Amino acid sequence: MTRAPDLNLVPFVSVDHMMKLVLTIGTERFLTELAGYIEEDFKRWESFDKTARVAAHSLDGVIELMPTSDGTLYGFKYVNGHPKNIKDGRQTVTAFGVLADVATGYPVLMTEMTILTALRTAAMSAVAAKYLAPKGSETMAIIGNGAQSEFQAMAFKAILGIKKLRLYDIDPVATEKCARNLAGAGFEIVKCTSAQDAVEGAQIITTVTADKQYATILTDNMVGTGVHINAVGGDCPGKTELHKDILTRSDIFVEYPPQTRIEGEIQQLPADYPVIELWEVMLGHTQGRRDPQQITLFDSVGFAIEDFSALRYVRDRLKATGLYVDLDLLADPDEPRDLFGMLLRHQAAMV
Amino acid sequence: MTRAPDLNLVPFVSVDHMMKLVLTIGTERFLTELAGYIEEDFKRWESFDKTARVAAHSLDGVIELMPTSDGTLYGFKYVNGHPKNIKDGRQTVTAFGVLADVATGYPVLMTEMTILTALRTAAMSAVAAKYLAPKGSETMAIIGNGAQSEFQAMAFKAILGIKKLRLYDIDPVATEKCARNLAGAGFEIVKCTSAQDAVEGAQIITTVTADKQYATILTDNMVGTGVHINAVGGDCPGKTELHKDILTRSDIFVEYPPQTRIEGEIQQLPADYPVIELWEVMLGHTQGRRDPQQITLFDSVGFAIEDFSALRYVRDRLKATGLYVDLDLLADPDEPRDLFGMLLRHQAAMV
Repeated sequence: MTRAPDLNLVPFVSVDHMMKLVLTIGTERFLTELAGYIEEDFKRWESFDKTARVAAHSLDGVIELMPTSDGTLYGFKYVNGHPKNIKDGRQTVTAFGVLADVATGYPVLMTEMTILTALRTAAMSAVAAKYLAPKGSETMAIIGNGAQSEFQAMAFKAILGIKKLRLYDIDPVATEKCARNLAGAGFEIVKCTSAQDAVEGAQIITTVTADKQYATILTDNMVGTGVHINAVGGDCPGKTELHKDILTRSDIFVEYPPQTRIEGEIQQLPADYPVIELWEVMLGHTQGRRDPQQITLFDSVGFAIEDFSALRYVRDRLKATGLYVDLDLLADPDEPRDLFGMLLRHQAAMV
Repeated sequence: MTRAPDLNLVPFVSVDHMMKLVLTIGTERFLTELAGYIEEDFKRWESFDKTARVAAHSLDGVIELMPTSDGTLYGFKYVNGHPKNIKDGRQTVTAFGVLADVATGYPVLMTEMTILTALRTAAMSAVAAKYLAPKGSETMAIIGNGAQSEFQAMAFKAILGIKKLRLYDIDPVATEKCARNLAGAGFEIVKCTSAQDAVEGAQIITTVTADKQYATILTDNMVGTGVHINAVGGDCPGKTELHKDILTRSDIFVEYPPQTRIEGEIQQLPADYPVIELWEVMLGHTQGRRDPQQITLFDSVGFAIEDFSALRYVRDRLKATGLYVDLDLLADPDEPRDLFGMLLRHQAAMV
């Protein structure tokens, strides 16, 4: 006999449980499966309710809510971005998210999303590269070796078969950390002394630096023909990584144009500059890479649908793993109209 | 010696803890203190970032995010509205919320808000009535005896000294439930057979019905001079409770006009129909009730600042009561840039 589920309970995945979930499934398999969910959702792009994120800006950073829905499920992510946090030992970006049932409005999952966002960002990059990077790419440069760099490396290994990494960061300590963390993962790793050095012989160039400013991580002369640029770090107004001349030499692929035009590298370009939407490439409406000389650029900013895919993925893995606890989040009186009575009965039970 | 706080932990108030918190503090004192927080925040209205709620509508209901910030703290509420839920024993409205520190973007409180919303809605009504109801009001009619009705009664008792209740609902079972729940609270209660009957002799008329449709709970002839109408139930597009002629005879007070014009009773009136903002009354910029013959109407829809006040209040009461648990919500690597390393060390610890 199954008893009716407890309507008050919502499964919650803590940071600890998320780590266990990733490690139990295996980082590469997790990234590959998550990439599958993202691709699945991008292929039904038009069925989603899409809104730009709702941002509360302050002097020190931004707090954002990123909601979306496919009509059956609703998801949102809370995420902050505070570059100065690192000085107090806090994360620049932390996040959590909720998945809910559209038919009842009841949440069905609450989860940490700091780690999950790192994974989904990397999985998204790899999905884009699957359609855009040169066939048989084996070498990736990673410029910026902070919190996101290892996740990018693992996703490109799992999904594209990248074997060689060329790492560079203005802070050599970050490069050391990245190389050390990836030591057991089976890469051939070269620690480089400049961005110029790092891009040497790379078919894929990942830029993932953290400074909140207009920067020029890559200049035009550093980028040869035929490469794929995975531009992850330029992701908010005033924060870009690439020289404008690189952009105009590339075919530019984006997640959701209204958001990317504000937050991505293309904020440097006119508002009507032509870009290609990735979902159209995935559905075969438009070509991805069409010739070996072409420079392709994924101008990644992170879109709500990717978080939705990540929430869906985690939810689907919960039952088998049991890596969650139930949160007593929703008031559930025996008689729905009797919320106050629930309080009274609780009082009686306390005495 | 105090050790550094665990940056990963966020206090969480479950439904069970919220009930204990209310009962420990006492419902009337809780409502009175919460009303104080609301008033405090309304009196600094101009320091808030105000946005209309972000709504995802579906056939069966709506899911909304309601964010606001005063520049120091940021709060948001997740709330759904699904009228058909009641058929499966679910709540029409459930909610939870988060308070965060603007300087770091880190959440400082997560809490159930189904019960808390019921309390804040009632406290808000009573705060408005403090400025608008006839002096010395003792009798309140409550039309609609569902989940919100008892909270309204308790708030008006605690904050305005209401002694007599005249209850009416189209479903006599609801009236019985309401009367039974309030039996020990010290009211003189009359169960009425019609809305007309209920308003007889009442200085304050609270309408708090639940149907999602244009309804006419009160017609013009039922409302005499000098009363205060606390219109709580008309709170979304297509849902109103009062005949338009009552509105045009009343002085109309609202929370946040851009939202009330879409969701409140005044959706029946032209978009430029004059209304008075409550915060201006509280600050003495505008008069509330100015003569005994005047009909005042609080067109309540519920605004994000009230949730913000409620979150602040709960947070301030946590330390003394201990009625929360710590949620492992935020990834907190020893070295902020080393999120992947945290995962590796967790793996090492698991072996």
